[in-house]
Amino acid sequence: MTWSEYLCFNEHEKIARERVKIKTIITGATIVTMDEQNNVIPDGAIAFEDDRLTYVGAIPEELNQYDRVISAGGKVILPGLINTHGHAAMSLLRGFADDLPLKEWLETKMWPMEARFSNEHVKWGTYLAIVEMLKTGTTCFVDMYDHMDEVGQAVEISGIRGVLCRGAIGLGSQEEQKQKLEEAATFARNWHGAADGRITTMMAPHSPYTCPPAYIARFVDRAEALDLPIHIHMSETKREVEQNVRDYGQRPVAHLEQIGVFNRPTLVAHAVHVNDEEMDVLKNYDVKISHNPGSNLKLGSGIAPVSRMLQKGLDVSLGTDSAASNNNLDMFEEMRLAALIHKGAEQDPLAIPAQTALNMGTRIGAKTVFLSDSIGSLEPGKKADFIILDFEQSHLQPAFDVISHVVYAASGKDVRDVYIDGKQVVSHGVCLTVDEERVMYEANRVIREIM
Amino acid sequence: MTWSEYLCFNEHEKIARERVKIKTIITGATIVTMDEQNNVIPDGAIAFEDDRLTYVGAIPEELNQYDRVISAGGKVILPGLINTHGHAAMSLLRGFADDLPLKEWLETKMWPMEARFSNEHVKWGTYLAIVEMLKTGTTCFVDMYDHMDEVGQAVEISGIRGVLCRGAIGLGSQEEQKQKLEEAATFARNWHGAADGRITTMMAPHSPYTCPPAYIARFVDRAEALDLPIHIHMSETKREVEQNVRDYGQRPVAHLEQIGVFNRPTLVAHAVHVNDEEMDVLKNYDVKISHNPGSNLKLGSGIAPVSRMLQKGLDVSLGTDSAASNNNLDMFEEMRLAALIHKGAEQDPLAIPAQTALNMGTRIGAKTVFLSDSIGSLEPGKKADFIILDFEQSHLQPAFDVISHVVYAASGKDVRDVYIDGKQVVSHGVCLTVDEERVMYEANRVIREIM
Repeated sequence: MTWSEYLCFNEHEKIARERVKIKTIITGATIVTMDEQNNVIPDGAIAFEDDRLTYVGAIPEELNQYDRVISAGGKVILPGLINTHGHAAMSLLRGFADDLPLKEWLETKMWPMEARFSNEHVKWGTYLAIVEMLKTGTTCFVDMYDHMDEVGQAVEISGIRGVLCRGAIGLGSQEEQKQKLEEAATFARNWHGAADGRITTMMAPHSPYTCPPAYIARFVDRAEALDLPIHIHMSETKREVEQNVRDYGQRPVAHLEQIGVFNRPTLVAHAVHVNDEEMDVLKNYDVKISHNPGSNLKLGSGIAPVSRMLQKGLDVSLGTDSAASNNNLDMFEEMRLAALIHKGAEQDPLAIPAQTALNMGTRIGAKTVFLSDSIGSLEPGKKADFIILDFEQSHLQPAFDVISHVVYAASGKDVRDVYIDGKQVVSHGVCLTVDEERVMYEANRVIREIM
Repeated sequence: MTWSEYLCFNEHEKIARERVKIKTIITGATIVTMDEQNNVIPDGAIAFEDDRLTYVGAIPEELNQYDRVISAGGKVILPGLINTHGHAAMSLLRGFADDLPLKEWLETKMWPMEARFSNEHVKWGTYLAIVEMLKTGTTCFVDMYDHMDEVGQAVEISGIRGVLCRGAIGLGSQEEQKQKLEEAATFARNWHGAADGRITTMMAPHSPYTCPPAYIARFVDRAEALDLPIHIHMSETKREVEQNVRDYGQRPVAHLEQIGVFNRPTLVAHAVHVNDEEMDVLKNYDVKISHNPGSNLKLGSGIAPVSRMLQKGLDVSLGTDSAASNNNLDMFEEMRLAALIHKGAEQDPLAIPAQTALNMGTRIGAKTVFLSDSIGSLEPGKKADFIILDFEQSHLQPAFDVISHVVYAASGKDVRDVYIDGKQVVSHGVCLTVDEERVMYEANRVIREIM
């Protein structure tokens, strides 16, 4: 058996693909649908065939039509969580450098190490991230990075859903800039719709502070030509905003608006330092926001005005950013942080209720990665991307309020089973598609080689 | 077998007590000693006999002197975590009422339910909390509650270490006040030093806003007579501080100073709204502070000025508060919140480094509950209270920096084994001293009876 087969069980997967035409129903669980009414069905059922949900509701009288009936009493089923901003391969740098300001952390620690990353580093770093994400209930993630063919392959093999983009820093020569742009466009074109549609792509100029305006404009043109969204970092730190004003005479929102970025569907990461007027501009263009509370706190970037954004009707989802600034990829933690920190900072216990935080991690997450037709809630016709939590544990009892427990008490470690596209990828906490031990070994090997 | 035996394995425990005279050494783990130099020993060893540590250091050449040698490669050993403020039995009210301001939450939700609590509620609520705490690596907890004999018994049986106090709200009649004071003093006297010394006690007037000054003064007198510390809530919300000024013409710190509280060794919980001058007063009296970041955020109370407190040399430890305002008792989360939220709020990535957060959860924790002679670090002569974490997991690799990973990436679910007083209470994530399933069943039963 070759390593590639060992890793991904390719043959098994092919056989499994034929088999998943069978009709499966899971019964007896509490179903947190995350539909528009936030319906929760106690003692409910969820059925799927191939990659699609076929039924969500009370347990049907008649179960004979199903080929497979799985009993899930005491469990809670949720849509898979959606991590809307990150750099998966940077999991290799988890704990490599902490407790530094963003600029110093990037320029003296992250960028020099990342410059030494080869395809192999990105491969194993990404697998390390994916296995962690799958095990903690993330079924779809945004990745902005380099060596993206490796990421595409890891997504294809691992069974996760990915919204991928080659992030381009435009500080180099014209030649380098052009090369990165072409790489980004080629990747985006080649991989959009790949892996049975589990991969979609975006165009990603890294940020206003690392890309000249003309370079960003070229990304916008390519995004237009490929009919793809833009993903970009924006207004992460106060310093960055001040720098933008010094360099271009305006704050980042006006700057990006002027370049025409927001004429494309756009997902901005961070938006920590945006004022009221800027939020109105973002709302006018329906710009989507990925709030990264863990990373923003850890890097001392600040606390984004999320309650205000929500009041203005902006779509705000959640991202972990990379494990180098988080330092894990557990989306339950991001939901909890989103629910907690704004209450504390505003001294308002109603700032972001538990239900809102869960919306951000699921349904709104799907909206902000432009996949709300297919994922983000459990409704017939949508993709069978869901997670099963074990609630029969002391820290989740008494189970008065399942939404409260998911947001305020649970962690990714309470995820027992994960299904994506109707295929089980985690069973009893074990990843079925990626060999975690091998990944840990290889990740340690490749990072130590360049230290 | 009676239920009591079933729960606590009393007979087994007696046998075990005789047996633990055997000399045990655990080898090959990374030992995070948390001694004054914060020494970390890679590939180290820790030995204990009966309830005490006998050796912490490199793996000895000669292992023959040990009766039992346990290999722990790839594991990390830490002192048990110390939770310095909480109300264990309120785990029964986890998720019962969320997203409300403190006053409304207390007066319309918590207090009416708690008024219906019997001994049985406190018994099962406390067991529910203890089993969660043990499994997530807390080996010592502070509990301020009612029906405290039940708590004392649960601590004795479960094997955890407890710093216990009957918290008294002095809003009732003189008769009621007197009764509570007597209860508090009787409990404190009877249980101090119980359970082989695993239990110590404090005297706890609930807070300046629920106790008249004269009543607080009587607690101080009793604490003096019994030679015990005081534990009290203080300056949790802005509203409470304003109320104190209205009622007594001064802020809570001056108020408690005037009553004489700080003449006793004192542990205050919260201290969210304390100004610079007040911190100086607290420092002058060496008042200890329990910072409860999760609860303070969730109730919208605010963010305590912890960096400033540390600059002033105050001893600040960490508490979860109850699961009704947290909503779990995982001290890893409190360490992470302490490390993250102050960085974000102050926009300073150096605000509370990982090492400081871990100090707060261990060594400083011990200091603030007046047990630094016996717990809080792994040093020969101290109690054998330690926890073993499994680091061979994707979210804890690569293992560049164990302190960083413990604070920024780990959770209570990574705790595999727990020892208290040299006795193993958790093995492979399973609590050996308390039957978790039975506790969950009883907790649900008793809370539903009064709803």
